[in-house]
Amino acid sequence: MKPKKLIVIGGSAAGAKAAARARRINQTADITIIQKDPYLSMASCGYPYYVGDVFDDRNMLLCAPTGAMRDPDFFMQTKDIKARTEVEVTSINREKHTVTCRHVVNGKEEILEYDKLILATGAKSKMPPIPGIELEGISTLLSIQDADYLRALVDEEKVQKAVIVGGGLIGIETCEALQLAGVEVTIVECLPQLLSFLDWELAKIVENHVLSKSVHVILNNGVSAFVGENGHLTGVKLQDGEEIPCELAVMAIGVTPNSRLASDSGLEVGKLGGISVNLKMQTSDPNIYAAGDCVEVKNLLSGENVLAPFGDLANLQGRVAGENAVNGNSAIFPGTVQSGICKIFEFSAGSTGLSEKLARALGMFEIETVMNASPDKPGFMGAKMLISKMVVNKGDQRLIGYQCVGPGDVSKQVAVAAMAIQGKLAVHDLVNSDLPYAPPFSLAIDHFIASAHIMQNKLSGRMVGISCQKVWGKVNDKKNNADRPFLLDARSPQEYKQLRLGVGETLIPLGALRNRLQELPQDKEHEIICFCKISLRGYEAALILMAAGWKNVKVMEGGIMAWPFAREK
Amino acid sequence: MKPKKLIVIGGSAAGAKAAARARRINQTADITIIQKDPYLSMASCGYPYYVGDVFDDRNMLLCAPTGAMRDPDFFMQTKDIKARTEVEVTSINREKHTVTCRHVVNGKEEILEYDKLILATGAKSKMPPIPGIELEGISTLLSIQDADYLRALVDEEKVQKAVIVGGGLIGIETCEALQLAGVEVTIVECLPQLLSFLDWELAKIVENHVLSKSVHVILNNGVSAFVGENGHLTGVKLQDGEEIPCELAVMAIGVTPNSRLASDSGLEVGKLGGISVNLKMQTSDPNIYAAGDCVEVKNLLSGENVLAPFGDLANLQGRVAGENAVNGNSAIFPGTVQSGICKIFEFSAGSTGLSEKLARALGMFEIETVMNASPDKPGFMGAKMLISKMVVNKGDQRLIGYQCVGPGDVSKQVAVAAMAIQGKLAVHDLVNSDLPYAPPFSLAIDHFIASAHIMQNKLSGRMVGISCQKVWGKVNDKKNNADRPFLLDARSPQEYKQLRLGVGETLIPLGALRNRLQELPQDKEHEIICFCKISLRGYEAALILMAAGWKNVKVMEGGIMAWPFAREK
Repeated sequence: MKPKKLIVIGGSAAGAKAAARARRINQTADITIIQKDPYLSMASCGYPYYVGDVFDDRNMLLCAPTGAMRDPDFFMQTKDIKARTEVEVTSINREKHTVTCRHVVNGKEEILEYDKLILATGAKSKMPPIPGIELEGISTLLSIQDADYLRALVDEEKVQKAVIVGGGLIGIETCEALQLAGVEVTIVECLPQLLSFLDWELAKIVENHVLSKSVHVILNNGVSAFVGENGHLTGVKLQDGEEIPCELAVMAIGVTPNSRLASDSGLEVGKLGGISVNLKMQTSDPNIYAAGDCVEVKNLLSGENVLAPFGDLANLQGRVAGENAVNGNSAIFPGTVQSGICKIFEFSAGSTGLSEKLARALGMFEIETVMNASPDKPGFMGAKMLISKMVVNKGDQRLIGYQCVGPGDVSKQVAVAAMAIQGKLAVHDLVNSDLPYAPPFSLAIDHFIASAHIMQNKLSGRMVGISCQKVWGKVNDKKNNADRPFLLDARSPQEYKQLRLGVGETLIPLGALRNRLQELPQDKEHEIICFCKISLRGYEAALILMAAGWKNVKVMEGGIMAWPFAREK
Repeated sequence: MKPKKLIVIGGSAAGAKAAARARRINQTADITIIQKDPYLSMASCGYPYYVGDVFDDRNMLLCAPTGAMRDPDFFMQTKDIKARTEVEVTSINREKHTVTCRHVVNGKEEILEYDKLILATGAKSKMPPIPGIELEGISTLLSIQDADYLRALVDEEKVQKAVIVGGGLIGIETCEALQLAGVEVTIVECLPQLLSFLDWELAKIVENHVLSKSVHVILNNGVSAFVGENGHLTGVKLQDGEEIPCELAVMAIGVTPNSRLASDSGLEVGKLGGISVNLKMQTSDPNIYAAGDCVEVKNLLSGENVLAPFGDLANLQGRVAGENAVNGNSAIFPGTVQSGICKIFEFSAGSTGLSEKLARALGMFEIETVMNASPDKPGFMGAKMLISKMVVNKGDQRLIGYQCVGPGDVSKQVAVAAMAIQGKLAVHDLVNSDLPYAPPFSLAIDHFIASAHIMQNKLSGRMVGISCQKVWGKVNDKKNNADRPFLLDARSPQEYKQLRLGVGETLIPLGALRNRLQELPQDKEHEIICFCKISLRGYEAALILMAAGWKNVKVMEGGIMAWPFAREK
């Protein structure tokens, strides 16, 4: 029998993984990776950290952990995989089972046969046709060439001011890299918030942290033109007319699947522009698989197809496509909960499952949310704050989303939540989760479990929560001054002196509250909103007031730590 | 209606939490904590870090995060809870619904009535009747008085040499604390390993790390007598006759539930000595609840009752008992998977679910295990090694146990595994888990998911694994020299030069293997064991050999990183 011929188009995350997995499953198959780029298996998620000089050795992006460069020799010698770099596949002939390749350097064409084909063509940066976009000084951060370009600018200190267009994951990571290199950075984002995978109130907390690093953030605004002199960028003109001088602009408004080759070949492409695949990662042609940033996959919570261009999913999908291409569809990739995380200065910001915003956009209205703020570990072990939001189905109490931001150990929180979602766990399960506890690692009641406790109190009606934004809206609603809620800060005078909301709240320390009930509105229907630093004392205050007969008592969720607006000091 | 009278006996973790939860559920109940100790709600898991001078302010063990001392005034003012310290309950009259109390200081007796009672009497250190145990210089580390005693010794530099009796969690944490304070520490453990919640091979890796800190470890040995002069400890005599000079001995051979009051009152006590409770945390008397270190709870994987004296579980159980005592059994605590973790110098060691040892002891033989070693994040972000062991049921592939040790982010790994166990997830689920990925936090394929991948390869027969110990046994088995396996190290010559097993292995780098098959035993039945640094190249080498016709090819799991024996440099 002739060995099976497998061609993998694309040699970054999904492609390299697919080829390696195929080889491990089948030692005799003839496996070829065709890669347009000169490099293979690049650690592309590491580019921002290279640009930001977190490490200096560019080879670390291209080498195996052992230090071996992942070049065609490496793939041939260790994996018996032919890797052909700087070769582009220009067309697929599905009837003849061939691909036509073009050598990037010399333009020579070549036709290769396949039995099975895997498309791992990745994604490309969105580059809208803005006037001036061809100017020197406008880059993306998707390829290693982009990383080289930005790193050189940084090393040569050629850039004083940069504009990052887009405040998503890549924009935020690039922002950190450039700011750490001493560049004055402005982020321009057309949405009302950074990091659109977060709900607004969490994104706002991240934004406050970014602003504290002297980064400029411009929201609700886009770029109308790039301005230049002698072909070099000199500034960015915004849609509202403002012009920001800069020598560098980084486009980070998202990526779009590289599905052109697939659509040109008549393969089915989804509404979002990604290649359509089934759970086997098989395209509409059963001999062609696809994996990575070029495909659409199912969101396991919404059931909808989504684009999920994450390096980890590319690897998992590549593993499935590689196995199935040589082993007859033995593996599946069921879908994603779109877990994501990024580091931004001393903060991390992560999310898994559905945000409230996304759930509501999907028509899921029978949900409950809760905000929680608490340290990640005891004060004596160097506690850092975590601020999170949990989203559950009201009916079955199942966890459907979790977001977390702050200087604390966000990564563990979001990973735990991702696993809880995969396990279809509900609030009544999570309140008794048995996580590993010791003071160097967490509180005795871990932040995640505490979030479930608060959610349980909310679902059972013991606590009526209100978000910081709603409180903000109420105190700023001039029309309803008479109905203005009574804001009760339950902290100590010392804490109040150091930091307070400054929106007309009244300080009554929790310990004094039972004896000072006469200082509250005596109309028992008047809305009272209780809070403290993290709203645990605020919750206890609310319970006291409810027991004393007040009918409309709420707790401001997450307390002052989750308050995303200006505070008085 | 008279307010309900709730008495909570014990005011540390479970008791304080139970009282606070009861108050939050019921604002009118008359709630009293009776605490023998002068302190309340102590952060007892923090004692080793106070002894080791991780922090200097003893009040941090006794204060709320806001800095307020958790004394009787605090409980009264903020929670309307009477906390009576230095008062001991000497008996319970279940018929009359009363408890008899004795004031520790003046010996005065008092009788208090209850409607509901919660026992949170905790645990006490095991103190076997070893000759000399009454000598000055022998301590435990269970109470704040113990912590004060040890801290003073450390601060005054009065101790040069200490022996820690017991190599479990508290022993290990105490070891770190004393060693960091400059004390020469010897751990004496009667078992063949430290940290008995780990399987031997992982415990051995932790032991190697402990030894690297110039701590002495003596296994398979116990203390036969404490030796002293003028009433002061001068040494410890071991069962094998050896005598170790020391001025301090810390007993850390485990704790035993304080269930005396319960048994004296005729409440049911389990075989392990803990108070028997149902899922409502209710004892055999429906008006009496119990929570924390004094109870037995169900291990959710074995179905067996266990003692699980962990601070996090004490809080969760206290929360349930407190709610149920005032709210008519609305909450349950289903049980534990006995998740635990500790820090030991630069390593962490954690476990959740069943170890292989424990599963087999329980008669569960249809299990599969796998070891995995890999970094926690990319090299360019400062990777640290994780070494883990996964235990699954062979039949349904369900995860039933996970252990992890090393300098990497063990806490996240074990937390994720604990949640996967709670979600009843199986290997075929875990291979596609969607964890949050970015280079500062993990590899593109997270260590936990990679462990599931290797397990899947094992379960499907693609990989035949062998543990490092079994390899060690085979190379040291002099009887079977003829049948000695061929050990194939698939790394590079440079790596080999730096570090190697030194047990007669043959170096053939993976990249050269396909051309050097003639260097292998030509008897295709001969046992060949492949490995590399972490055994990924070892796995690829094994696949090559199996495809080339060798019939008995194994992969040494975890590679050199998991090798717990001496290595050559």
